[in-house]
Amino acid sequence: MSTLHSWFSIPRGSHFSLANIPFGIISTASSKIPRVAVAIGDHALDLQVFAANNGFSGLSTIQPHQAVFSQPTLNAFAALGRPVHSVVRKYIQSVFAEDTPYPEVLRTNSSLQKQAIYPLREVQTHLPFKIGDYTDFYAGLNHAYNVGVLFRGPANALQANYKHLPVGYHGRASSVVVSGTPIRRPNGQILENPAAEKKFPSFSPCRKLDIELELGAFVCKANEIGQPVSISEAEESLFGVVLMNDWSARDIQAWEYVPLGPFNAKNFGTTISAWVVLAEALEPFLAKGLENDTELLPYLREKRTENVYDIRLQVDLKTKSGRSTTLSKTSSRNLLWSFPQMLAHHSITGCPMQVGDLLGSGTISGLEPSERGSLLEQNENGKASIKLADGEERKFLEDGDEITITGVCGSDERALVGFGECVGRIEPALKL
Amino acid sequence: MSTLHSWFSIPRGSHFSLANIPFGIISTASSKIPRVAVAIGDHALDLQVFAANNGFSGLSTIQPHQAVFSQPTLNAFAALGRPVHSVVRKYIQSVFAEDTPYPEVLRTNSSLQKQAIYPLREVQTHLPFKIGDYTDFYAGLNHAYNVGVLFRGPANALQANYKHLPVGYHGRASSVVVSGTPIRRPNGQILENPAAEKKFPSFSPCRKLDIELELGAFVCKANEIGQPVSISEAEESLFGVVLMNDWSARDIQAWEYVPLGPFNAKNFGTTISAWVVLAEALEPFLAKGLENDTELLPYLREKRTENVYDIRLQVDLKTKSGRSTTLSKTSSRNLLWSFPQMLAHHSITGCPMQVGDLLGSGTISGLEPSERGSLLEQNENGKASIKLADGEERKFLEDGDEITITGVCGSDERALVGFGECVGRIEPALKL
Repeated sequence: MSTLHSWFSIPRGSHFSLANIPFGIISTASSKIPRVAVAIGDHALDLQVFAANNGFSGLSTIQPHQAVFSQPTLNAFAALGRPVHSVVRKYIQSVFAEDTPYPEVLRTNSSLQKQAIYPLREVQTHLPFKIGDYTDFYAGLNHAYNVGVLFRGPANALQANYKHLPVGYHGRASSVVVSGTPIRRPNGQILENPAAEKKFPSFSPCRKLDIELELGAFVCKANEIGQPVSISEAEESLFGVVLMNDWSARDIQAWEYVPLGPFNAKNFGTTISAWVVLAEALEPFLAKGLENDTELLPYLREKRTENVYDIRLQVDLKTKSGRSTTLSKTSSRNLLWSFPQMLAHHSITGCPMQVGDLLGSGTISGLEPSERGSLLEQNENGKASIKLADGEERKFLEDGDEITITGVCGSDERALVGFGECVGRIEPALKL
Repeated sequence: MSTLHSWFSIPRGSHFSLANIPFGIISTASSKIPRVAVAIGDHALDLQVFAANNGFSGLSTIQPHQAVFSQPTLNAFAALGRPVHSVVRKYIQSVFAEDTPYPEVLRTNSSLQKQAIYPLREVQTHLPFKIGDYTDFYAGLNHAYNVGVLFRGPANALQANYKHLPVGYHGRASSVVVSGTPIRRPNGQILENPAAEKKFPSFSPCRKLDIELELGAFVCKANEIGQPVSISEAEESLFGVVLMNDWSARDIQAWEYVPLGPFNAKNFGTTISAWVVLAEALEPFLAKGLENDTELLPYLREKRTENVYDIRLQVDLKTKSGRSTTLSKTSSRNLLWSFPQMLAHHSITGCPMQVGDLLGSGTISGLEPSERGSLLEQNENGKASIKLADGEERKFLEDGDEITITGVCGSDERALVGFGECVGRIEPALKL
């Protein structure tokens, strides 16, 4: 069956081609209870309504599990496992294919089309998972190097452990929000003059509010405490991928982060895109990541050499003027570690992973200045200004600035696998 | 009404006197579904059964909410808020009081006594909360100083930020387990020779497995993202307190923790005691914590000066020989920051706290060697050995070692407010 041609109108260049079929959580004006949907072209297919109207009549294996599509998160669907995600995706592809073997399900069923298919612009998206724990890694080698140079100089830019293990830290799950949610500028402690002998912080709205261009991956399989997930099993534990903006308060971070790592600098908001692209849909876009010249311990050795995704990523900043400037364009090939490696490392101690856990890749930057995934790198820690299309300049984000991350794979305009947008707009700090 | 005398037999010296009434989650051989209970003396009162049999007939306000006692966690009960926790506790105290105004509820109702009261030894306890996020602070000044001396010398022992804010980091919620759960020694990357120029880690079971004596506090009130919890509101957001052992793999930590903090060294297990002592029950034991000679920013200033609990804490190690040695005795007054301060700091950025979030105090150590809350401090980072009662010696934990933390407040043996035990036994590492 072709995944290029559909009887349904899918615009050329859509991120949500028939080759994709990403999953998300939606509600609509007429039905406000969140439930599962897939995105296709400019539309969403409501899987709760679809299932309730015999949409899955051609897929008997899913029928006992149809209640998962009425859930307000993807956790229950994800927990069914990757073989099930695969058959559901392929079945939906076949239902929409030009040469569908199931024309009666939807193609010739205009009543169900009306009931279950909505324009995306009329749909409210919600956080796709109930996230148990969120872990942020630091697998973007160029970012780690650039930041290391800024703070420690080129000779000591990368720590000794960096190429031996995927460095990561536990993040804040409760402040992960779906694309479109406003981000309030945080207040916090800031040390104005780090060189002063007497170090007294002031209390202030963050003045170095930054972005971090990342990917996030969701876990779909739990392991018992004490039982690591091996590198060969890890792929089966990963549901799919989203775009992620891990907003960062650099001035708060600089004062707080020694010795236990970033805390308040990161816990006020992390934005993810609404539609989760299944790992299976991304498999054709696996590529070699950054070369690691270090011999890895066996628990981190992957059989495949093409282990990271080649997603074309872009970051745009729109100011209050309404004009946009592209801040960065890069590829997610700029990672030293794959998600299976992150998962294997995370659980090597026996740490229990749960369905809905989120793994962040760390900031993704290419080698060139135009490929940097954070403002900190772009402005060399506040030294340089970035010129915007409307004549304004930026070091860090100002109130009203809107950041949009996009990501897409593939070259055939009829078969793109993309993520849509990951958007957040900065609201002024609370006056406390 | 007296909280000293009960018609029910409560042994002198019991942690669970009438003055306490801690809440937990239990199951029994005849009824395996976890539900809410309180501990009283050597017994548990099953609140599901109690509620279903008109136990709350004297407390009309709780009757519409009785379903919370059939939940497998305390989250729903906690979410009712501190005024409700208070009336439920006081009502249960009054039901058990010698001069109870409700004798027909339980005292003269032997049928309900038989149905709803079980010996603690016949009860299985479960994790009391579904924990959304777990945050570990570092508020034990003496511990932070001792560790700082070991790694940086006395002049730089405390970081510049230490007395300005409660340093903390996001921990791993999924590996928090209830007292009695075995702890498997983790495997991980260890740098055998940190002084070597070429730094190649080996893969090994942790050889520096340590304890951390802490308190944990559970959150019972959510705040919206972007809306901090003020220091004056924070007390109302705290449900109660447990003992906590934040197991730590010191050798894994030493290699991994720069620059983003501890990760695998902490994510394999954190043990908490089963019975959560309500904040209200601990109020009589509030005391002055450690003196902070730094002027605090307003958002951290508490009105009350007695803001930490004076809980007598003890850590015992039992080896395979069956003999126990007391490793440490100290008080939880050895904290620089209170739980309300931790919560106010945590949320000052607008970080959303959720019901069931867990805040760890950080390791509690007194000034004397016999008061240290971690082995790392006791053995001066592996230099000294600790002599045990059975003639053995320890630097760090060996397989089969069992650690028991206890904590209790008060001096009247008839009115103690205690936590019972927080126990974990080390199992051998998996062979990988």
